[in-house]
Amino acid sequence: MIFTHTLSKAQFSPEKMGKVTLGAGEHLYAGLNCFEPGQEHKAHTHADQDKLYVVLEGSGEATVGEETAIVSAGDVILAPAGVPHSMRNPGPHRLTVLIVFAPPPIKA
Amino acid sequence: MIFTHTLSKAQFSPEKMGKVTLGAGEHLYAGLNCFEPGQEHKAHTHADQDKLYVVLEGSGEATVGEETAIVSAGDVILAPAGVPHSMRNPGPHRLTVLIVFAPPPIKA
Repeated sequence: MIFTHTLSKAQFSPEKMGKVTLGAGEHLYAGLNCFEPGQEHKAHTHADQDKLYVVLEGSGEATVGEETAIVSAGDVILAPAGVPHSMRNPGPHRLTVLIVFAPPPIKA
Repeated sequence: MIFTHTLSKAQFSPEKMGKVTLGAGEHLYAGLNCFEPGQEHKAHTHADQDKLYVVLEGSGEATVGEETAIVSAGDVILAPAGVPHSMRNPGPHRLTVLIVFAPPPIKA
């Protein structure tokens, strides 16, 4: 599964952060989180999943545990299972991040 | 674990593709593969791990199973467990890709 022009698959919504699935294997899931300026994904924890972010476009404020940093394209954020994390787009541009979950979310 | 200026951590070698570990949780491992022009990681298979590439810099020729594409910054490649995959840097620039394994490699 090769995803070129990944940013062209981003979906933004004025109401809340957009989510797009790229693909998944047995052991990991890959998708996009898409933030309009001002949108955020508030601090939350995945008890049994590691989560990795890779910033594809724009910049954001990332927090993992006690660590906070301004991140931009190419930066990588790893939130191990059980560690609270959040992502916020202070603007003025859109923010698109690749997210990876391992293991993949359980399908409903 | 927040990794900014990820590309500054790349390590290249004239002999073969450079490998750098960024970090790992219980369920996934993140690192860099660094290709000088002309270097490649020949077709191989991980029987029990999904592997994800994210191109950070440069461009390369990626193959997963029967699919081949020229990839560049921001492109995402998912090689599910059991599917042969390869990456080659045709040049003329350096190629740096983030790699994610789930589950992480077993430590020696």
